[in-house]
Amino acid sequence: MTKHFVRELEKLKKKILSLGALVEERVYLAIKGIESKDPDLATRIIRSDYEIDETEVEIEEECLKVLALYQPVAIDLRFIVAVIKINNDLERIGDEAVNIAERIQSMAKYPNISFHFDYTEMAEIAAAMLKQSLDALVNLDIDTAFRVITMDDDVDNIQGNAYLQIKQAMREHPQEMTYLINLYLISRHLERVADHATNIAEEVIYLIEGEIVRHGKYL
Amino acid sequence: MTKHFVRELEKLKKKILSLGALVEERVYLAIKGIESKDPDLATRIIRSDYEIDETEVEIEEECLKVLALYQPVAIDLRFIVAVIKINNDLERIGDEAVNIAERIQSMAKYPNISFHFDYTEMAEIAAAMLKQSLDALVNLDIDTAFRVITMDDDVDNIQGNAYLQIKQAMREHPQEMTYLINLYLISRHLERVADHATNIAEEVIYLIEGEIVRHGKYL
Repeated sequence: MTKHFVRELEKLKKKILSLGALVEERVYLAIKGIESKDPDLATRIIRSDYEIDETEVEIEEECLKVLALYQPVAIDLRFIVAVIKINNDLERIGDEAVNIAERIQSMAKYPNISFHFDYTEMAEIAAAMLKQSLDALVNLDIDTAFRVITMDDDVDNIQGNAYLQIKQAMREHPQEMTYLINLYLISRHLERVADHATNIAEEVIYLIEGEIVRHGKYL
Repeated sequence: MTKHFVRELEKLKKKILSLGALVEERVYLAIKGIESKDPDLATRIIRSDYEIDETEVEIEEECLKVLALYQPVAIDLRFIVAVIKINNDLERIGDEAVNIAERIQSMAKYPNISFHFDYTEMAEIAAAMLKQSLDALVNLDIDTAFRVITMDDDVDNIQGNAYLQIKQAMREHPQEMTYLINLYLISRHLERVADHATNIAEEVIYLIEGEIVRHGKYL
């Protein structure tokens, strides 16, 4: 490994982490938006998504450049390929924050709805999964990666709970259907944030073990 | 380009196409299942998903091997990276077929529901998008890739229509809520199939033009 290559790898690590931080911030803003139903906050999330898109493109270009210039093999090659895929997942988490923001904009039109589902716990777990999956990547820490995967079950449980409660509210308050459908969809967007974080964690484990842990084979 | 490398590329093309065909078949089965509400068909889709997962892993391994052995540059490098990402999208389309199958299993418990939304057109467009995006990849055909992207609007329109009609049905038949939520979710799963096909088409355009068409910049 040349000194140049090591420097490029460090640069790439920093860049994917800074995209991770950007995406994380958007998820936190979206969580805040769910609580406050603030349509201006939602608009801010939607309008700034281009930053995430641009960074994703830059990182992929950087990966291609490193592959072409240094022609890495073994673990280094696997790392670059993992970054390409994780980059993709991060961009899609950004899209989920935008989806949540759109739901918030729609819900903000109905300020007097009595029914409430508290997404705080679900959102916090999903955001923690994202954060920890990136920590696992940078530190190549397999234990943290495995922990992320188990956290996904908690998210799924809360999602199931949201489904049951919101379905009941739909039956009882059919006149509030638009609001309730949007409220329900938020649970699905949060679930997808957690799914993408799980993908990232699985990619990290795959990278470390060189084995296939995707598709549940590690269980 | 060595003769060996050309042969490896051909092998890779064949392999991603055969995964595409497998995924396409599952989407068609899911469409058939939506119409027939056949829980056995749904079970078959769910149980055979492991084949798609295994093929995805094989293709990624193959890509890493080709990168390490032949250290391709320029368009060849870009092609391999595109295959890695398209491979990922195909596997996730397979997951959406499984999601639809799970919805069908839930809906099959309610055989006497009167409300119906005809997903035939939406499903056919989504399946055509998948097929054409893979054609575009193999033939490096930019026109076909662009056509796929415009088709996504039709899918979104039908999805919006499904939302309005099913929301109305939810208001009128609150006792059929479980069925109706599942019926609605099918529209979202089909929409995601179309989204992944759009990703594939964008990847193909990117590959051909070497420009960034993702994130709507080509509009």
